Amino acid sequence: MTSSQNLHLATLAAAATLIGCASDPLPSWNDGPVRRSIVRFVGQVTRAGSPTFVPPVERIAVFDNDGTLWAEQPMYFQALFVLDRVKALTPQHPEWKGQEPFASILRGDVKAALAGGEQAAGRLAMATHAGMTTDQFEKIVRDWVATARHPTTGRPFTEMVYQPMLELLAYLRTNGFKTYIVSGGGVEFMRPWTERVYGIPPEQVIGSSIKTEFQLRDGKRVLVRLPEIAFVDDGPGKPVGIQTHIGRRPITAFGNSDGDLQMLQWTAAGPGPRLCLYVRHTDAQREWAYDRQSPVGRLDKGLDEATAKGWTIVDMKTDWNRVFVFDK
Amino acid sequence: MTSSQNLHLATLAAAATLIGCASDPLPSWNDGPVRRSIVRFVGQVTRAGSPTFVPPVERIAVFDNDGTLWAEQPMYFQALFVLDRVKALTPQHPEWKGQEPFASILRGDVKAALAGGEQAAGRLAMATHAGMTTDQFEKIVRDWVATARHPTTGRPFTEMVYQPMLELLAYLRTNGFKTYIVSGGGVEFMRPWTERVYGIPPEQVIGSSIKTEFQLRDGKRVLVRLPEIAFVDDGPGKPVGIQTHIGRRPITAFGNSDGDLQMLQWTAAGPGPRLCLYVRHTDAQREWAYDRQSPVGRLDKGLDEATAKGWTIVDMKTDWNRVFVFDK
Repeated sequence: MTSSQNLHLATLAAAATLIGCASDPLPSWNDGPVRRSIVRFVGQVTRAGSPTFVPPVERIAVFDNDGTLWAEQPMYFQALFVLDRVKALTPQHPEWKGQEPFASILRGDVKAALAGGEQAAGRLAMATHAGMTTDQFEKIVRDWVATARHPTTGRPFTEMVYQPMLELLAYLRTNGFKTYIVSGGGVEFMRPWTERVYGIPPEQVIGSSIKTEFQLRDGKRVLVRLPEIAFVDDGPGKPVGIQTHIGRRPITAFGNSDGDLQMLQWTAAGPGPRLCLYVRHTDAQREWAYDRQSPVGRLDKGLDEATAKGWTIVDMKTDWNRVFVFDK
Repeated sequence: MTSSQNLHLATLAAAATLIGCASDPLPSWNDGPVRRSIVRFVGQVTRAGSPTFVPPVERIAVFDNDGTLWAEQPMYFQALFVLDRVKALTPQHPEWKGQEPFASILRGDVKAALAGGEQAAGRLAMATHAGMTTDQFEKIVRDWVATARHPTTGRPFTEMVYQPMLELLAYLRTNGFKTYIVSGGGVEFMRPWTERVYGIPPEQVIGSSIKTEFQLRDGKRVLVRLPEIAFVDDGPGKPVGIQTHIGRRPITAFGNSDGDLQMLQWTAAGPGPRLCLYVRHTDAQREWAYDRQSPVGRLDKGLDEATAKGWTIVDMKTDWNRVFVFDK
């Protein structure tokens, strides 16, 4: 699509809004089986009097975040946050220069740092995510999101967001759905910006978490973040997180990796119409192309099951005429 | 208040509704400092342009359940559910007749059963709350709520609900608040009926929980309830549960016991106007009278702190002209 066409569409959309007409709610989605499966599903569950009608309170839609709503290459953005925080905290931790995995991070060698496996990753995560109050951590995340830039695009991370998915979130909400994030990422790493960026308030964000403790510090009641995992919201943890938090089974679920498979299975196992959708990263030019072999966001078992079950699979290259919010 | 006065009020309210006037949103609350503190607070945070205005998305209100929204005497209603379930399950567990704490329950001697302390209570809880799927447990609770009766009033437990608190919930929601339950009770014990009874959907219920596991059973994806505590939403657990689930600090909190104190402290510690309210059980005639010495719903430290801090304390006897929904 040329930029003059885009301008034309924008003008049309503005005009349609002005005169009260419904404009296309999904302009970044090309016409085809994927777009049609979304529109058909929404029609099935919202048409009053239809046998497949679902009351608005039960229209729960769950979205993975990394690789589904925003990008996840060259590595999870929260991992980049960890690296930045290690550097920022080093003046207070001179001992890190002689300690792994910190020493490798400070030399800029992330691969060496992560050679220590889960234990090394855990040490990095706890050193940067625990010890402060929840209010302090929120401010740290806000400040980072406001200033950090993506290593290859130079964009703020909150612009590395997929325009078609923003349209999909708004389209579902317009049709009475309640939209949730269900992510393996840290819940308090997402909440400070999801309302502004996705229109999803903090209480509709489900994620991984560490324990917190109610304490009195300097005469003030605070919640202190402890260096201990409370919940891992990934893979089989996703249905658990959904039930714990929402207490209702979703009728539609959106993911991009094997870590989302159980969330899609749990959604699919309910009665009535269901929309289970995988975003497949097929566009090396506008985004990244990866699936079965990728260490980040691997889509292998999920792709087999989605194909076997006839779930909706977005081919980013052909189904989206625009990828990022900053694309023209 | 006489029943003819009540009839008069009901007629007036109906007439006011018909002609589009605002009727009293809190008819069961007598005029006085308590009622005025509620109305004043709501005015402070909702008046557009006021320096104390709070945007609707931040109007979070949290309510304890046992003793705050519904009664908790002669014992927590969930404990009565446990006793009923032990009896119902005994045919499948003939060995219980020779095992404590089950044997005492089956003899009708609850005191002897609970002589084993927390361990005995834990065994009873797990035997009745774990092992089944989340869908199965939901059905068990629904069936119990539909048929079980309160031991002294003979009413369904979902009628042992305080009429003034229902009015308060509705009043806050009308003013843009999002109302949550934050209870030490089991979250899945409350969710099947809170929407119908309180207008609070399952995703706005926070409570104690046991672990669940995503499994394949008879070819179906299910969540199985495991006999292991996941989270205790009581005392210092309440601010933790609020932050985990909502990710925003409430601006108003309602409780009735020391188990709610930290929730009120956490609410009070934020900036701007706050309403922290304790319901005090002072009416032995219409309800029950208990506080500092009660094993159930003890209000001792909380009462001291509420008095010292000038929090709002409801005197059930003088502040409420009607207690239960079935009272006239």
